[in-house]
Amino acid sequence: MEIYNFSAGPARLPKEVMAIAQEEFCNYQNSGSGIVELSHRGKFFAPVMERAQANIRELMNISDDYEVCFVQGGGNMQFAMIPMNLLNGGTADYIDTGVWSNKAAKEAKFFGTVNIAASSRETKYDHIPAQSEWNLTPNAAYMYITSNNTIAGSEYLPLPKAPEGVPLIADMSSDIMSRVVNVNDFGLIYAGIQKNLGPSGAAIVIIRKDLLERTPDNVPTILRYNTYTENDSMYNTPPSFTIYMLALVTDYLKKLGGIAEVEKMNIAKADKLYGFLDSTDFYSTPVAKQDRSRMNVVFRTPSDEMDAKFVKEATAQGLTDLKGHRLVGGCRASIYNAMPMEGVDALISFMKEFARVNG
Amino acid sequence: MEIYNFSAGPARLPKEVMAIAQEEFCNYQNSGSGIVELSHRGKFFAPVMERAQANIRELMNISDDYEVCFVQGGGNMQFAMIPMNLLNGGTADYIDTGVWSNKAAKEAKFFGTVNIAASSRETKYDHIPAQSEWNLTPNAAYMYITSNNTIAGSEYLPLPKAPEGVPLIADMSSDIMSRVVNVNDFGLIYAGIQKNLGPSGAAIVIIRKDLLERTPDNVPTILRYNTYTENDSMYNTPPSFTIYMLALVTDYLKKLGGIAEVEKMNIAKADKLYGFLDSTDFYSTPVAKQDRSRMNVVFRTPSDEMDAKFVKEATAQGLTDLKGHRLVGGCRASIYNAMPMEGVDALISFMKEFARVNG
Repeated sequence: MEIYNFSAGPARLPKEVMAIAQEEFCNYQNSGSGIVELSHRGKFFAPVMERAQANIRELMNISDDYEVCFVQGGGNMQFAMIPMNLLNGGTADYIDTGVWSNKAAKEAKFFGTVNIAASSRETKYDHIPAQSEWNLTPNAAYMYITSNNTIAGSEYLPLPKAPEGVPLIADMSSDIMSRVVNVNDFGLIYAGIQKNLGPSGAAIVIIRKDLLERTPDNVPTILRYNTYTENDSMYNTPPSFTIYMLALVTDYLKKLGGIAEVEKMNIAKADKLYGFLDSTDFYSTPVAKQDRSRMNVVFRTPSDEMDAKFVKEATAQGLTDLKGHRLVGGCRASIYNAMPMEGVDALISFMKEFARVNG
Repeated sequence: MEIYNFSAGPARLPKEVMAIAQEEFCNYQNSGSGIVELSHRGKFFAPVMERAQANIRELMNISDDYEVCFVQGGGNMQFAMIPMNLLNGGTADYIDTGVWSNKAAKEAKFFGTVNIAASSRETKYDHIPAQSEWNLTPNAAYMYITSNNTIAGSEYLPLPKAPEGVPLIADMSSDIMSRVVNVNDFGLIYAGIQKNLGPSGAAIVIIRKDLLERTPDNVPTILRYNTYTENDSMYNTPPSFTIYMLALVTDYLKKLGGIAEVEKMNIAKADKLYGFLDSTDFYSTPVAKQDRSRMNVVFRTPSDEMDAKFVKEATAQGLTDLKGHRLVGGCRASIYNAMPMEGVDALISFMKEFARVNG
């Protein structure tokens, strides 16, 4: 039985990539050692790090105005590092569209003033507040968004821009490289790798060079962005296996034709699944139509009990990890880059049959 | 040709462990997914995390007075987190025995007063200063040591104790689980995993429970030790592959008979290699005899040019990564737990022949 894992992250990776990693796991390029056993400063790993960075630059069309680096600690570490490096007692605007932006805003309060410029919290994050209603701070230190809300199942479509002179910061953990993004619209983009791009253990940080100057002197070395940018992300031992897998996944994305091609496939997958949801009375999604995430499709059956039954029976059919996030319940199908259309088709087939029997 | 990789880290892992990880890389326990693709909150990964923690507790005989957790960012992150959580404007004693303790002391200055209670820096860290000469601060917030100095090639043998009431903090990154340690002598032990225990990407932190109360209120969530201890190291997505490999390596150490058995092998390997070094005029080691590391054997040939030739010819013979750290030059053979006696024997054979031809 083919198993489709709809986990929100760590998540399914391309089969081709997994096969390569397995094949060379114990003997990387005839070194006699696995990539996990090799020095990060040796001749085998250095080109992997370079390739990961170069692939990201190419795929996202990143200009020389930006640095690309890798930081351990995932998104939660960025919640702290961003204000620690960039707020410095000033005021930042946060757009509160889900659990993760809310957490990020809380961490920023340790380092300055946080203005929640807009929030959909009162309606359980069922939409992205319209930009015309945002109460932005003039000359804010930065404006912060979560481009895709993994738990709520919403996504900025299209992405907003910040007022002139205000750096836009985006947590793209769950939609990075799933869609074409104009990096020049942002001051900083970051993303945990463990959804679209590889195993857990690192975040990609893309930062405009001028922002590197902002870090106050009293920030410890390992928490300063320039520590990473000035040392090719090798000031300390990097999470080498995660970077290696990232290099393989981005090689694969290039082979597919780049992000524009990948985005087309993602739109097709999401359209098909939402199209099916909209065609039934049995399933529903709480997310406003124009804000529906292409990555995390949140839905419900008519009852909590039926949701649980759905998840259990789907699992038995090889459609796994469809349970909604523990904070919100319901069901969720994460259909990141590596989920093929066949997985979506298998899910829809199962959903049809489940609705027929239980509807 | 059998290849022996003497890298200081990331470093050789047990062959048995590498074989298991390769075998189940794409299909962990018939889940249809690799461990890197599985949710950290799912039924497959949770037992891995539990096993890694339980194995460490068992192998190091850790009492209920301590918590064991995993933090991303390696040793350098601990240089910052320790004073951020435990110093709080007080004074800490640092014993400066190498590059890493020196770096750790520098980071602590952001959070309080640092007293370098002893240092061997002036003699290029060629020994561990005798404890009778340490200028300790009465009632220091903590006393900090690096139990094994990876670059200088020295090690505390035996380990010191802190004055009554002062928590002893040890960076054991390069000798954790290579020797029997009485955890009750310590307030906090930490170690990057990437030398003796697995791939890079996480540090083990063993912390006495009362110290968790010290963290000031203004420390961000992801940088607080209690965030990790109260959430089974799953507040955020853990570096799941690194934890998985750690579970496999610690399974293996248990199978070998535990740390006391492993320590015997490590002593035998180190004794043989130092015994050979001492028997020649061609090779020398700068480290004081009583402080020689069992993990990182630092040595030189008669000249820098000869060192380079040695490293090059050794590499051609399958004895790799013998170059000394870029800060100190010379040669270094790291012989962590996973280096078999056969590797040490092969190195000594080569060294003999190289000295015969070039001596």
